[in-house]
Amino acid sequence: MGMQGENSAQERRDSATIVVFSGELDRALAAFNIATTAASMGMEVTMFFTFWGLNVVRRERGGGGRKTALQRMLGLMNRGGTRRLRLSRLNMMGGGRAAMKRLMRQFRMPSLEEMIAMARDLGVRFIACTTSMALMGLTEDDFIPEVEDFAGAATYVERASNSSINLFI
Amino acid sequence: MGMQGENSAQERRDSATIVVFSGELDRALAAFNIATTAASMGMEVTMFFTFWGLNVVRRERGGGGRKTALQRMLGLMNRGGTRRLRLSRLNMMGGGRAAMKRLMRQFRMPSLEEMIAMARDLGVRFIACTTSMALMGLTEDDFIPEVEDFAGAATYVERASNSSINLFI
Amino acid sequence: MGMQGENSAQERRDSATIVVFSGELDRALAAFNIATTAASMGMEVTMFFTFWGLNVVRRERGGGGRKTALQRMLGLMNRGGTRRLRLSRLNMMGGGRAAMKRLMRQFRMPSLEEMIAMARDLGVRFIACTTSMALMGLTEDDFIPEVEDFAGAATYVERASNSSINLFI
Repeated sequence: MGMQGENSAQERRDSATIVVFSGELDRALAAFNIATTAASMGMEVTMFFTFWGLNVVRRERGGGGRKTALQRMLGLMNRGGTRRLRLSRLNMMGGGRAAMKRLMRQFRMPSLEEMIAMARDLGVRFIACTTSMALMGLTEDDFIPEVEDFAGAATYVERASNSSINLFI
Repeated sequence: MGMQGENSAQERRDSATIVVFSGELDRALAAFNIATTAASMGMEVTMFFTFWGLNVVRRERGGGGRKTALQRMLGLMNRGGTRRLRLSRLNMMGGGRAAMKRLMRQFRMPSLEEMIAMARDLGVRFIACTTSMALMGLTEDDFIPEVEDFAGAATYVERASNSSINLFI
Repeated sequence: MGMQGENSAQERRDSATIVVFSGELDRALAAFNIATTAASMGMEVTMFFTFWGLNVVRRERGGGGRKTALQRMLGLMNRGGTRRLRLSRLNMMGGGRAAMKRLMRQFRMPSLEEMIAMARDLGVRFIACTTSMALMGLTEDDFIPEVEDFAGAATYVERASNSSINLFI
């Protein structure tokens, strides 16, 4: 029992679990910055993409699973792919987003696409939330190959309860 | 001292504390999805409703506590009740919200109202933030009966510091 | 090894680390309310200001470091200083913000400026994110004197992994 307590404390210190709820470029950048930094420091990192956050790890052209009329309509207004993400502030019809991307290149910061690849190389685990997927009519084919796990809130809660860092972004 | 360290580690693993700051339907759904999942897995869950998050657990018709002119004015624009919550994106004057609710029914997902009842049945503790209540001129009568506790940030911090999962939604 | 586990559990219980990503008045108030409460209860508190959150701890008149044309343009639209922060909802061109501030005075709640001073007195550690600073062309001179540390995500992750409370606001 004592040993177990110590082990779990040990375990908790070494992992981070991040819920990516937002589908905004700036918040996605913050999430991946923390995730890649933690992973490069040896922590076990899990990112759980849910709701609008699914857009961050969607292919630009979806797999075309069967959708209801309502889902198709929503799908037209809620397209996925990193290139389409907006800023949460100062987006200005894409002008702010373009400025942000230009500044990131200028200062040789990795782009979101590069950070996603980097995260995967560092062993960050990507989970897409199956409940949100059902709601939006998305299938496993709609996601970039970095997403290998598809699971619900129970998987998230189990991971999170053993993590020293838990964030909802 | 050693025992205390182990006990607190044990305690932390078994509880989750969620600040519900946002008054948006999608974020409220995410909060209750995590809360009910964690509670059904045997964790002790506390939800601390503050600022706009108070709207999630307000009655549609308030108790009518004494308000200043300014609070009455704010009250007209910031009405409570789960039916009135907006989406954080694609709300489209309520169209996106209606679509979301229709999809949830279609896929037999519990509505927010059902999730609130479910959370209460599972023993989730609802706390309304008294500081925010004072600011908005709300009294205990303004809340649904599931809210049994009224407390400030100190109660939150104490709970949170003993929780393995801490989220700000 | 056993001792280390116990010590780190002990350490975790006693500290809180808050990422302030948002530059909105209501979210900044929530962050400082939790931070000052935790600090007054004896916890070691770190606030990590990043992205729009940098605006919360910027001087109204910046230090004027060298900026690219793009950064100067962004700077004009993204001014810092607590007086300029908007509400995340019901801002109404500043009307909601003014109402909020008036209500806070009426109920003798500390203003954001007072909470910042209070946090500093209680020993809360303020860190400005150097990556975001580079992106926005900000230098150390652009910040209020309460900000004494300038660091990147690695410093944040190290702090956070030893904290019992971790929030992303």
